[in-house]
Amino acid sequence: MPKSETPSAPFSYDGLDRVIHEKARLGLLTSLMAHPKGLAFADLKQLCGLTDGNLSRHLQVLQEAGLVEVTKGYEGNRPHTSCRLTRTGRRRFLDYLVVLERLVRDAARAAGKEGAPLARLGMLAT
Amino acid sequence: MPKSETPSAPFSYDGLDRVIHEKARLGLLTSLMAHPKGLAFADLKQLCGLTDGNLSRHLQVLQEAGLVEVTKGYEGNRPHTSCRLTRTGRRRFLDYLVVLERLVRDAARAAGKEGAPLARLGMLAT
Repeated sequence: MPKSETPSAPFSYDGLDRVIHEKARLGLLTSLMAHPKGLAFADLKQLCGLTDGNLSRHLQVLQEAGLVEVTKGYEGNRPHTSCRLTRTGRRRFLDYLVVLERLVRDAARAAGKEGAPLARLGMLAT
Repeated sequence: MPKSETPSAPFSYDGLDRVIHEKARLGLLTSLMAHPKGLAFADLKQLCGLTDGNLSRHLQVLQEAGLVEVTKGYEGNRPHTSCRLTRTGRRRFLDYLVVLERLVRDAARAAGKEGAPLARLGMLAT
């Protein structure tokens, strides 16, 4: 049992860090994990299907938590914003994913379908 | 690519239903999935490490969304509240889990560690 869980509360999933667990931020972190050298604001926006306002807001939360670095500069005459995952961000996202993977496994076991691919479970459940 | 994602926004994870995606509610749904005949309020509270107030609030959200049934009655002279997953709740939670599993897989691939157990990844990242 992971250290973060007490034996009496096996389904508390304390490791699901709220800064990371927000749906749009999960997409941002996954995109940035896939591009360790960083991504332009416009590319992130497209990959995650976000508006300018939403992307700015979520990047600010991630930046304040030290998970993401945002660099504002110019490319020629045009402003250019670039974003990358910090070393801390990568570590904390990987830690989070360990808990998330456990949750998926717990739920599959609870559904009595342990070991079955969930994509198939979803189809069976309809 | 799942129907809910557009090719241009592969990291939008539209299927992460906000009613389900909340951390405490994920624990509740997993607990109830493991106990298809239902659980007493007090047992759910302990399994998920929640206070009375938090448990009531999250159960109400799940009940209003049709995912959970809450039955209030008596056991002897004492009030007894019992909760169970509805058929819709089970199906929607399984659908959600398919998207969550894809996210874990995408992120593991992005980290360049596809196929490796994430529990090991987390340790490697520290």
